[in-house]
Amino acid sequence: MDNPFFKNNGPFNFRDILKELSLENDEKSQDQNIIDIKDLQNSQLNEITFFHSKKYKAAAKNTKASFCITTKNLQNELPKSCIPIIVDNVLVSTSILTAKFYPDSINDNFDKTVKEIKDTKFIDKVKFGKNVLLGKNVSIGTNCMIGHNTIIEKNVIIGNNCSIGSNTIIRNTLINNNVRILDNCVIGKHGFGFFPKHNKNLRYPHMGIVVIEDDCEIGCGCTIDRGSMSNTLICKNTYLDNQIHIAHNVKIGENSIIAGQVGIAGSSIIGNNVKIGGQAGISGHLKIGNNVEIAGGSGVIKDIPDNSKVMGYPAKNIREFLRENR
Amino acid sequence: MDNPFFKNNGPFNFRDILKELSLENDEKSQDQNIIDIKDLQNSQLNEITFFHSKKYKAAAKNTKASFCITTKNLQNELPKSCIPIIVDNVLVSTSILTAKFYPDSINDNFDKTVKEIKDTKFIDKVKFGKNVLLGKNVSIGTNCMIGHNTIIEKNVIIGNNCSIGSNTIIRNTLINNNVRILDNCVIGKHGFGFFPKHNKNLRYPHMGIVVIEDDCEIGCGCTIDRGSMSNTLICKNTYLDNQIHIAHNVKIGENSIIAGQVGIAGSSIIGNNVKIGGQAGISGHLKIGNNVEIAGGSGVIKDIPDNSKVMGYPAKNIREFLRENR
Amino acid sequence: MDNPFFKNNGPFNFRDILKELSLENDEKSQDQNIIDIKDLQNSQLNEITFFHSKKYKAAAKNTKASFCITTKNLQNELPKSCIPIIVDNVLVSTSILTAKFYPDSINDNFDKTVKEIKDTKFIDKVKFGKNVLLGKNVSIGTNCMIGHNTIIEKNVIIGNNCSIGSNTIIRNTLINNNVRILDNCVIGKHGFGFFPKHNKNLRYPHMGIVVIEDDCEIGCGCTIDRGSMSNTLICKNTYLDNQIHIAHNVKIGENSIIAGQVGIAGSSIIGNNVKIGGQAGISGHLKIGNNVEIAGGSGVIKDIPDNSKVMGYPAKNIREFLRENR
Repeated sequence: MDNPFFKNNGPFNFRDILKELSLENDEKSQDQNIIDIKDLQNSQLNEITFFHSKKYKAAAKNTKASFCITTKNLQNELPKSCIPIIVDNVLVSTSILTAKFYPDSINDNFDKTVKEIKDTKFIDKVKFGKNVLLGKNVSIGTNCMIGHNTIIEKNVIIGNNCSIGSNTIIRNTLINNNVRILDNCVIGKHGFGFFPKHNKNLRYPHMGIVVIEDDCEIGCGCTIDRGSMSNTLICKNTYLDNQIHIAHNVKIGENSIIAGQVGIAGSSIIGNNVKIGGQAGISGHLKIGNNVEIAGGSGVIKDIPDNSKVMGYPAKNIREFLRENR
Repeated sequence: MDNPFFKNNGPFNFRDILKELSLENDEKSQDQNIIDIKDLQNSQLNEITFFHSKKYKAAAKNTKASFCITTKNLQNELPKSCIPIIVDNVLVSTSILTAKFYPDSINDNFDKTVKEIKDTKFIDKVKFGKNVLLGKNVSIGTNCMIGHNTIIEKNVIIGNNCSIGSNTIIRNTLINNNVRILDNCVIGKHGFGFFPKHNKNLRYPHMGIVVIEDDCEIGCGCTIDRGSMSNTLICKNTYLDNQIHIAHNVKIGENSIIAGQVGIAGSSIIGNNVKIGGQAGISGHLKIGNNVEIAGGSGVIKDIPDNSKVMGYPAKNIREFLRENR
Repeated sequence: MDNPFFKNNGPFNFRDILKELSLENDEKSQDQNIIDIKDLQNSQLNEITFFHSKKYKAAAKNTKASFCITTKNLQNELPKSCIPIIVDNVLVSTSILTAKFYPDSINDNFDKTVKEIKDTKFIDKVKFGKNVLLGKNVSIGTNCMIGHNTIIEKNVIIGNNCSIGSNTIIRNTLINNNVRILDNCVIGKHGFGFFPKHNKNLRYPHMGIVVIEDDCEIGCGCTIDRGSMSNTLICKNTYLDNQIHIAHNVKIGENSIIAGQVGIAGSSIIGNNVKIGGQAGISGHLKIGNNVEIAGGSGVIKDIPDNSKVMGYPAKNIREFLRENR
C-alpha cells in the first residue's frame, strides 16, 4: 500500500511496544527498534505484523516481518525469523500499536490547517468558487475547478482537468486526471471500523487512502471511506451515481457503472466492466468478478464469478430468480 | 418527555380550545384554563390529551388529564376526572391544538438568529473552523470542536469533548459527552409527519427533540429527525455509519452498531447491543429486542424478540432464511 | 417540453450535421438549416429527431421532423417528409448532435456566475441566511426564505411563499408556490446518463429541467436530477422524506407521499395519490398507476396498475406476498 499521507511516529523499541500492550518484559531483543507496522504480506525486516486467523496461514509462513502479534495457537505457523508476541486479542493489540505508530489516522476532526484558496498559491492556477478551503499538503494539477464551499482538507493530490462540485469534502485522497466529483460528497474519511466494547468502542486506525483513477465520475451525496491498512480504490472510467456509499478497503475495477444508492461494504473487491443497479448492496469481504451484472435492489452475500448476471436477495442467477418470481 | 426547547404558548381557556376545533360551546368548564397538551401517560391535571385507538385503552383508563380529545365510541374508556371532547378525527384535532400550544414546532425554516461563532462567547472556548454559525439558546461544553460551514441552530446543548464535523446542521438536540458527529449530517429537523389532505397536507407539530447520549458516533450524511410528542433517542456508545436515516420518535439502545444506509421508520424502538447490517430497513412502530442481529439488506416488518438473529424481507430467523435460500 | 434555460446554439446546416457524425456528404439538402433537435413527438419542420427502437414506430410514422437519425432497418417507418440519416448507433449519434445544439447541458461544473445575494436585487425581497449565493437568470417570488450556505445556481425560478433550507444546491429548476425544500439537497444536476465506452464514457446532454409544483415538500439530503430530453416533474402537494433519489425524466403525480431513502430510476412515471414506503426502489421506464401503495423495501420491476397495493422484491400483490411469507 502506498501511504503518502499518514506520518509514521516510529521507530519504537521493542520494550516500549511490549509496555504498550501491557505484556511482560522479555530479555531478548528489548532494545531492537521496530520501524513500522504492516500486514503479513507487506511487512519487512525490523517491522511488526499481525496474524489472527488460520485463513492467513500461507501469508504468515512467508512474512518478512521481524515481529508478529499473534496467539498461542497460531505462533508455530510463523517463520523462525519472526518473533511472535502472544496476546489475547490480536486485532485489539494491533489496533493499539497502529495507533502508536499512526496517531493521526484514528479520528477525523475538522482540519484546522485549512486556508481560503485565495490565500494560497493556487489562486491563479485553479478556477474556484466562493469560500473554498484548502488544507496543507494539497496539490492540484492544471485546468481544475473547485466549487463553492468545498473543503479540500489536508493530504489530497488532484491531477489535471478535474472538476470538483460544491459543498464537497475531500481528505486523504489521490485523484488522477479528468475526474469529476459532484456536489455534497464526503471522500476520504476513516471507515466504520472499531472493536465493539461496552461503554466505549475502540476505533482502529485507517492509514489507507482513497485513490480515484482517471476519467471517473462520482455523483452527488456519495461517501467513500478511506482504507484501514490498504487503500480504497476506484479504477479508471468508473462512474458512480448519486448517494452511493463505498466502505473502507473496497476496490472497484475499470469501466464499471454503479447506479444510485448502492452500498458496498468493507473490503469487497469488484471487477472490471461491472454494472450494479440502483439500491443493490454488496456485503463485506466479497469478490465480484469481471463483466458481472447485478440487478437493482439485489443483496449480494457471496462471491460472484466472472461474466455472471445476478438478481435477488440473496442474489442468484438472474434467470433462475426471474423464473422463480414470475 | 423532556422538552427544554419549544415554548408553550398556553395556557388557553377551554372556550378558546373548543373554538379552535370549531366545536359547539358547552356551558360547563368554559373558563377553565388548559395548561399543556401531552399524551395519555404524561398528561396531568388541567392538561389536555388525546385518545384515538382501542390499543391505548389501558393508558386512557389511567390518564390524569382533565380533558381528552376522542371519539364517541372511545369516550367511555376515560376516567370520570377527564372530560371528553368528541371530534371526527382525533389526530387532526390534536394536531390543530398542538400547533396552538407550540406554533414553532411545525415548520423548520432556516434559523435567522444565528451569528458567526467568532462573535459569540464561545470564541475562546471552542475550537472551530471557518464560517461556523451558532443560533440562540446554544450551550457547548469544554474541549469541543466544530468544523467548517457547520450550523448549530437554536436549541442545542452540547456536552464536553465532542467533535462535530463540517457542513453539518444541528437544531433542537441535546448531545452528551464524547460524542462524534461527522460531516454533512442534518440532526433535529421535524419528522415526516402530517395528515394527508388533497391540495394541502396538514403538518403536525414536532415538539420532541433529538437526544444523543455519551460516546456515540454519527457517520457522514446521516439524518436524525426529532420526535413529535416524544424524543428521538440514541443511547450511549451506539455507532452509526454513513447515510443512515433515523425517523421521528425512534429510540436506539446502548452499545448498538448500525451499518451504512440503514433506515429506521418512525416510533420504532431498538434494544441494547443490537447490530444492524447495511441497507437494512425497519418499519415504523416496531420493538426490536436486546442483543438482536439484523443482517444487511433485511426488511423488518414485525417485532423481534431478544437475542434473535434475523435476515430477509420480511426478516425471519437467519438459519431458516439461509436454508431456504441456498 | 418547456426548455426555458438551455441555449440552443443552432441552427446548423445539414452539411455540418453530417460532418459532425462523420457521414458522407449527400448532394441533396446540404444547405438546409436545421433549427433544433427533439424527440419524435415534439419535433417540427426543419428540426431533427431520432428513432432507435421499434417500440416507437407509431410516433415515427407521425413525426413532423424534417430529418431523423435512425438505422437502415427502421428508416422505412418514417414518413416521406422526413429524411433518414442512417447511422450505426442512433443514441450515440443523437448524443453528439444534441451536444452540438446544447453544449451547456452536458457537464455541470460549479456556477461561476454566482454572487452573494446581498449584492443582488433580492436583498430586500427575500429573507436569507449567511453566505447565500445566486447565479444569473434566477427569479424569486414574494415571501421566500433561503437558508445559510445555499446556492441557487443559474436558471432557477422560484414562486411565492417558498422556504429553502441550508446547504442546498439548486440549478435548472422551476419551483412553484408554497414549496418547502429542506437542507442538504441537490436539485437539477444532470442525470446519470451516458453511453458506456471503455476508456471514456460519452455523457449525453440533459436539456430538461426539474419542475416542482405547488405545495410540495422535499426532505433533507434528497437528489433530484433534471431530465435529458423531457423534464423531471414533481406534481403538486407531493411530499418527499429524507435521502430520496429521483433520477432524470421521472414524473411523480399529485398528492403522493414518498418515505425516506426511496429511489426512483430514470424515466419512470408515478401516478397521483401514490404512497411509497421507505427504501423502496422503482426501476426505470415503468408506469405506476394512480392510488397505488408500494410497501417499504419493495423492489418494483414492472408496471403497476391503478389502485393496487404491492410489496416484495419483485413487488407483487401485497396479500399474496404476505400469505407466501408468513
